[in-house]
Amino acid sequence: MAAEIVNPRSGAEQDTESDEPFDPAFALHRGGKLAVRSTVPVRDRDELSLAYTPGVARVCTAIAQKPELVHDYTWKSQVVAVVTDGTAVLGLGDIGPEASLPVMEGKAILFKQFGGVDAVPIALGTTDVDEIVETVVRLAPSFGGVNLEDIAAPRCFEIERKLQERLDIPVFHDDQHGTAVVTLAALRNAARLTGRRLGDLRAVISGAGAAGVAIAKFLLAAGIGDVAVTDRRGVVSADRDDLTDVKREIAGLTNRTGLTGSIESALKGADVFIGVSGGTVPEAAVASMAEGAFVFAMANPDPEVHPEVAHTYASVVATGRSDFPNQINNVLAFPGIFAGALQVRASRITEGMKIAAADALADVVGDDLAADFVIPSPFDERVAPAVTAAVAAAARVDGVARR
Amino acid sequence: MAAEIVNPRSGAEQDTESDEPFDPAFALHRGGKLAVRSTVPVRDRDELSLAYTPGVARVCTAIAQKPELVHDYTWKSQVVAVVTDGTAVLGLGDIGPEASLPVMEGKAILFKQFGGVDAVPIALGTTDVDEIVETVVRLAPSFGGVNLEDIAAPRCFEIERKLQERLDIPVFHDDQHGTAVVTLAALRNAARLTGRRLGDLRAVISGAGAAGVAIAKFLLAAGIGDVAVTDRRGVVSADRDDLTDVKREIAGLTNRTGLTGSIESALKGADVFIGVSGGTVPEAAVASMAEGAFVFAMANPDPEVHPEVAHTYASVVATGRSDFPNQINNVLAFPGIFAGALQVRASRITEGMKIAAADALADVVGDDLAADFVIPSPFDERVAPAVTAAVAAAARVDGVARR
Repeated sequence: MAAEIVNPRSGAEQDTESDEPFDPAFALHRGGKLAVRSTVPVRDRDELSLAYTPGVARVCTAIAQKPELVHDYTWKSQVVAVVTDGTAVLGLGDIGPEASLPVMEGKAILFKQFGGVDAVPIALGTTDVDEIVETVVRLAPSFGGVNLEDIAAPRCFEIERKLQERLDIPVFHDDQHGTAVVTLAALRNAARLTGRRLGDLRAVISGAGAAGVAIAKFLLAAGIGDVAVTDRRGVVSADRDDLTDVKREIAGLTNRTGLTGSIESALKGADVFIGVSGGTVPEAAVASMAEGAFVFAMANPDPEVHPEVAHTYASVVATGRSDFPNQINNVLAFPGIFAGALQVRASRITEGMKIAAADALADVVGDDLAADFVIPSPFDERVAPAVTAAVAAAARVDGVARR
Repeated sequence: MAAEIVNPRSGAEQDTESDEPFDPAFALHRGGKLAVRSTVPVRDRDELSLAYTPGVARVCTAIAQKPELVHDYTWKSQVVAVVTDGTAVLGLGDIGPEASLPVMEGKAILFKQFGGVDAVPIALGTTDVDEIVETVVRLAPSFGGVNLEDIAAPRCFEIERKLQERLDIPVFHDDQHGTAVVTLAALRNAARLTGRRLGDLRAVISGAGAAGVAIAKFLLAAGIGDVAVTDRRGVVSADRDDLTDVKREIAGLTNRTGLTGSIESALKGADVFIGVSGGTVPEAAVASMAEGAFVFAMANPDPEVHPEVAHTYASVVATGRSDFPNQINNVLAFPGIFAGALQVRASRITEGMKIAAADALADVVGDDLAADFVIPSPFDERVAPAVTAAVAAAARVDGVARR
């Protein structure tokens, strides 16, 4: 790392008011985790006169005359805004924009490390849907894409939809679609391992927030047999009178067999459990699932059912944790999805691009497929290039590529 | 520079539709000039679990409980938003946000190289004063300061004032105050060289835009004898009926001797000419100035009067160009001003901080003072540390430092 000439953070001391024991996470976060760097030299007057005035004026003039040149001569097409309002941060909930910044910085690191994509944390001081939308629309000239992050449901759905309508750059709510892509990849491989087809499977999703809703829709788009989504009151079904607009839509799209009642009753004979709720599922309910079921208990840090318990009944078990096999981790998807979309200057991210990402991710496992290896490690260097290439190709097929 | 795993810009080719001869400025700008990098390692699962989940959650929780910790554990306190609407870019005028991006990236490079400050280009898709203000207020949780850039007058004045009222982080319109700080530094040294005091000097400023207005106010705050500001219609004086609010304010603050009429008449006997207009001044008008006058002809790329002509009559000549001595270049000021303000977490940038910056900048010249060396080179490595220290100290004196 290059030394900085002046570091405004130098002299920062450990928080002396804290009674906490030493925590390496705090030591690592001291001064933040991101920096901006120049990719061009500015060591003398001549170099300065190219990167800045007067040379830069010729580049500005060219872009003003031919707007698409902004993609060639600025970082716009490789920088993503990581936008949050701090209302649904990890499992912590509504902690506000400032407290969400460490997560957004971490996300930016993952964008860079795994996708080669630059990303800038934008934690907004508003939770109003229209204010967030207007703000991001105004920011859009500076960015090649928008990654929505940790915005609470149901506002996240409306924000994403409105931004997608108004912008011609990719807008992607990772908590929804990133999770859905990785889940589908794991599910495809679990099915392949056990000789089943997606169309034969009935899944129960615990959690009707951002991730649960997106996974349900995405699995249906990919051709799963049936999905039921459950919230704290049980199966999201059309007969309920307490549904939000989004849950009402979900009730119409899912649950073809007309299940009602508790998650326990829905799990009887189900082939797949997908937990994105943070709740718990009793062992008896897992035991009641179909023979050779798949249990993806993805709540963090506490899976809905402990993997060891799940293994007693299920043929494939996945979690959101890095210390168990088969970690369903968004970092497997979003860096490559954005890298692929930016590479071809996609105007948006289509269902086809997401399915291509899931398929490419599943394919990385290849012949190493096993019950404890249905999804690659986040550190598998084959993942991002495979996802990037598949997404770029799908963007061309779907007609949203602009180069 | 570290290699990127995937570079979405790879494969970008020279613009084949262009008939232009090869221009190194375009070659240098290919793919943009900025990148984001991680300042922490994320090479394996353990490191990822500190920089991201689950370790990051402990840091988020700490900030949620004690908000000021955001300064210790994120990059907020060292990152500045470089905000523009693209309406007054260099000498190019209103070229829009996308076409302004190369300048904003260049600015970010200068922030980093000369001040060690991270900066992010934010070119906004709106020119409405209130929309710009609302947008920046919503962005503020993510940034430690706001550098307004290349926003046309008179909107720039209102935007800056409203943001300063609403935010508790430094908001600084560099086209105004950066220029004013460097001008004052050069003027102090020119006066010292010729044995005069600021209070003895009468200055004429050509240009009543952002820079001219700010220089006029700042020179008055620093104790100059008198200032007259001129626009295309001549001296800005209270008897005119065509003045904007800002010019009316300037008419009340400046021109104690009640000059009216053309810049030529105002320059008769004047001690200082400061050109920030882009217009031209006839040689005869320069010849009519007082003995041993100072001519700061700062328009770029064409000074209001050519330095060789000015030297015939003036004792000290400065320009905005790097290929003549005494370049009045904002980069001498803004990196250190922000670095100093961020170092002490100043809530705003006071007049005292700006005057301290100008004095520190002037002092760098020291015993090397000469007619062709009243201001240091932008590449003088003593500048940024000196300005940073002076600004931080002045923030404490003015009671706006928060650490």
